[in-house]
Amino acid sequence: MPQNPSGAALLDEHITLDAAGQSLLFTDARSANAFTDEPVSADQLQAIWELAKYPPTAANTNPLRILYVTSPDARAALVAHMAEGNRAKTAAAPVVAVLAADVDFHTYLPQLFPSRPQLVDHFGQDDDARAEAARFNAILQAGYYLLAVRAAGLAAGPMTGFDSAGVDATFFPDGRYRSLIVVNIGHPAADAWFDRLPRHDYEQVVRFV
Amino acid sequence: MPQNPSGAALLDEHITLDAAGQSLLFTDARSANAFTDEPVSADQLQAIWELAKYPPTAANTNPLRILYVTSPDARAALVAHMAEGNRAKTAAAPVVAVLAADVDFHTYLPQLFPSRPQLVDHFGQDDDARAEAARFNAILQAGYYLLAVRAAGLAAGPMTGFDSAGVDATFFPDGRYRSLIVVNIGHPAADAWFDRLPRHDYEQVVRFV
Repeated sequence: MPQNPSGAALLDEHITLDAAGQSLLFTDARSANAFTDEPVSADQLQAIWELAKYPPTAANTNPLRILYVTSPDARAALVAHMAEGNRAKTAAAPVVAVLAADVDFHTYLPQLFPSRPQLVDHFGQDDDARAEAARFNAILQAGYYLLAVRAAGLAAGPMTGFDSAGVDATFFPDGRYRSLIVVNIGHPAADAWFDRLPRHDYEQVVRFV
Repeated sequence: MPQNPSGAALLDEHITLDAAGQSLLFTDARSANAFTDEPVSADQLQAIWELAKYPPTAANTNPLRILYVTSPDARAALVAHMAEGNRAKTAAAPVVAVLAADVDFHTYLPQLFPSRPQLVDHFGQDDDARAEAARFNAILQAGYYLLAVRAAGLAAGPMTGFDSAGVDATFFPDGRYRSLIVVNIGHPAADAWFDRLPRHDYEQVVRFV
């Protein structure tokens, strides 16, 4: 729920997305720390992508890649790379996704941006700039992805507390994908939530010039 | 609209957000390149924030800052830093936002995460790591922000084609904020859209291990 009455009134009056959608994606949605045993299906995971794929990236680069860590051995290997406080919940979550950036995303641009073939060379000539573009746009897509998980009626528990070099060495040994966020996904358990932390006031974040 | 029939069926069956919400935020929403003269109100901009502020950031850091460039002089200064192909639309948009990362976000953590006062020192001791955390989490919030603009019934035109060092020197001369994305916002004109570019197939993006 909005933390101030004027916030609630502004949402009522000026947001086109209906109250149920606002609640599902933004105002009442929370990062879950515990999940029920109810499984998440392969079709649900694909449906999440069928939403998350649409919002924009620079030059339609779409560098986000998703590794779903499902087998017991793979899950154990991932858990070993998590920060101590993230281990138990990552071991127990119905689904765990490693969100990563593909630093060779430009090899797909003939498919993704066929009218601008020069983009392949543009990104191909500078490995550092391409890795930074991959990271930037994959993080942006991670934001879309987290809201798409919520749109599927599921709870996400995104975490940056893990050894990303270790995750990359274990799961992406050829160096092409670089891990960004690990996300636990499922139906929230009754004790899934910490208290909501404060957010910035509008005046702390926004200026007009 | 989903680009494949199975995508549409998956959205129907497995997404809780209703069809209108899916369309507004994901499947039919597009990045606009031209806008009508209809203004965007101050209340609409605040309502966008009242949604965008909720989704998660690491350690509740919330480093995204928004500069709305409204005065004619400021708009002209911004346009001069845009890439050639972005100038006319940035000059003409009803509202233009510069999304930036606050590299000193940690000064707010006593407010944002009062139960973990050690976070201020944790982030305070390493300027480079803090700048990277600011960038990472502000880009994630930029993804939320773009979907919140759409939730307000408005169209966004996000751009990374601009001289960010020039924008920072002009608008953030003390070095605390670092520009990430410039976003044109308004009601889309009839000719606002390019053709939708392809997206990745599921199999190109997702793996299971």
